Amino acid sequence: MANLSYHEQHEVWQNLKKADPKVLESLLQEIVIGIQEPDQESAAAMQQRLDAKIKPLNSLGVLEDIVRQLAGIYRTSHPHIKKKAVLLMAGDHGVVAEGVSAAPQEITAQMFYSFLAGKAGINILAKHAGAEVICTDVGMVPPLNPPDLMANRIKNGTDNIMQGPAMTRHEALLAILTGAKIAREAISSGFNLLATGEVGIGNTTPSSALIAVFTGNKVEDVTGSGTGLKDKALRHKQEVIEKAIEINQPNPDSPLDTLAKIGGLEIAALTGVILEAAYQHVPIILDGIISTAAALAAAKFAPLTTAYMISSHNSEERGHFFALKHLGLHPRLDIHMRLGEGTGAALMFPIIEAALKIADEMATFETAGVTSGDF
Amino acid sequence: MANLSYHEQHEVWQNLKKADPKVLESLLQEIVIGIQEPDQESAAAMQQRLDAKIKPLNSLGVLEDIVRQLAGIYRTSHPHIKKKAVLLMAGDHGVVAEGVSAAPQEITAQMFYSFLAGKAGINILAKHAGAEVICTDVGMVPPLNPPDLMANRIKNGTDNIMQGPAMTRHEALLAILTGAKIAREAISSGFNLLATGEVGIGNTTPSSALIAVFTGNKVEDVTGSGTGLKDKALRHKQEVIEKAIEINQPNPDSPLDTLAKIGGLEIAALTGVILEAAYQHVPIILDGIISTAAALAAAKFAPLTTAYMISSHNSEERGHFFALKHLGLHPRLDIHMRLGEGTGAALMFPIIEAALKIADEMATFETAGVTSGDF
Repeated sequence: MANLSYHEQHEVWQNLKKADPKVLESLLQEIVIGIQEPDQESAAAMQQRLDAKIKPLNSLGVLEDIVRQLAGIYRTSHPHIKKKAVLLMAGDHGVVAEGVSAAPQEITAQMFYSFLAGKAGINILAKHAGAEVICTDVGMVPPLNPPDLMANRIKNGTDNIMQGPAMTRHEALLAILTGAKIAREAISSGFNLLATGEVGIGNTTPSSALIAVFTGNKVEDVTGSGTGLKDKALRHKQEVIEKAIEINQPNPDSPLDTLAKIGGLEIAALTGVILEAAYQHVPIILDGIISTAAALAAAKFAPLTTAYMISSHNSEERGHFFALKHLGLHPRLDIHMRLGEGTGAALMFPIIEAALKIADEMATFETAGVTSGDF
Repeated sequence: MANLSYHEQHEVWQNLKKADPKVLESLLQEIVIGIQEPDQESAAAMQQRLDAKIKPLNSLGVLEDIVRQLAGIYRTSHPHIKKKAVLLMAGDHGVVAEGVSAAPQEITAQMFYSFLAGKAGINILAKHAGAEVICTDVGMVPPLNPPDLMANRIKNGTDNIMQGPAMTRHEALLAILTGAKIAREAISSGFNLLATGEVGIGNTTPSSALIAVFTGNKVEDVTGSGTGLKDKALRHKQEVIEKAIEINQPNPDSPLDTLAKIGGLEIAALTGVILEAAYQHVPIILDGIISTAAALAAAKFAPLTTAYMISSHNSEERGHFFALKHLGLHPRLDIHMRLGEGTGAALMFPIIEAALKIADEMATFETAGVTSGDF
């Protein structure tokens, strides 16, 4: 982008779909190479603050890990959460034609309207945590009303990965950058703690496919029953994924190639959200299997991205476990959820804020007159 | 208590220490036999409400389990949380003379003052969740200033369990009923969601002893490093516990005998808190190893009590795992905490409230116009 003026760059971001593919590649490249390691000094200074608190050293475990991580990401020993949002990406999947989902495709858009009405699970949990839900259609099947809702749509659902690639390389690039754009807009509006959310009937299928390819695990080990497939249908879903990988031959070393061939539009958009969050020094909470498949792609683009990720729950979907493990992350909530939407991630907001309050509000040995020592 | 008037009963509760031991036994008996099974009809009605929500059946996992549990406990399909509190019990332990704790005993009282000042970890996490912390000294070593703070103190710390029983049967009874009294007062002030908290340097030692006796697990399997014992000191702690059990010969079928011989004053008080909560149809969130040792005793008194318990985190203390398993409970937060005070339990408040909001605020298939089906 060195050859574009600030104004031209702004124009490109406003009209990604009209931009030259080469320009899009350079936009993505700029993000990927711009992702920095979190600041170790700020993290160490935070640990010093925590060690002065009236408690045995490290006795708050993951709460301490989280605030140290926030300090490193925000590059300050006194981090502050301003506004929180779930960035929810919606897309449909051609592969549902193969009968890989128990629920009908029309539900994707119906749920999207429910999100906009503020009445779905993620709305309730986000509101409870004082967070907003920002929903974007990046690739549902038409129509949506009013048509403005489709402004960021790249494609009317992916193509059937049993018969060929989900989308073109250009479409995948557009989806990633659309996610990055939404994150960029949120961050410039003051949101500095983000979570991933999604809706897309059938999207555990491409997610499991991505996890199998990126982690090297067997398809049957990383494929679960989604919204409720029974035994035989689950085996069929696994066969569909195996076939899709065989037909498309995604290159695991190229996240763009892999996302295009066996991914999804909302998944690619979440990859963009995650990359942009890391690029802008903003922590990103991962939800379940779909978010974590997107995170694997983000980490393939830029391994440093994992330092910006905060895991939440362990989804009932089997692939989630392997994906988190590959990223070196551990689930924090063991609550057997499999709803998606970002619901698991939203439950982490209060825990993260609680952790930060420990750093800000808890007394020190010195001020409280409590005996300190090596314990 | 059938032979006491309402007024006389009130008098006894106000002056437990002056009451005849036989009267105390009958007070405890009244609670124990009065604990009912939660209402299955209300729980089933709640599940019906949840099944109408726009989500795959049971896809909110433990959130659904929790609201169903709340419905059963409160005996209504539309439960409501009014006020929340951590009931924190403080006590000291004669066994610290054996060098079983890395931290000095004076810290118990120092922390107690920090709780009263609102500046310790539990205060911060409770405040974050909109909950109060109600602290009671049931058995620290003297003095406390002002002396009023010691009004509920039963004994100036337990005796050394390496040399004999921690307390008399009468003192254990008083401690249990003092906990029950504090819970009774909180509940009559409108608190209807309670959590257990504690402070007491050395109290992982009697807790591990209780867990070994109540669960039948080996002492070395249920004993951890507390506030930070190193390897050799940990082995010593295990030997102290083994010796204490050998000397005192607690009867595992008598929770009162076991609490008196190898327990702690704050642990027995928490047993009382848990029993009273169950008796009064109030859910009780368990914290770590100390709370859960108290919960084992409560479940020995009245097995139905477990239906009123909500587990929170899995403490780093090894015995906690076995204690929860024995109770048939599963930890929900995997955050490697070992601070005590009720800090793990306090982190469950926002999750429980989130679960209830799902029941109250989320749209149904009917109102949202979302396609429903067997998925």
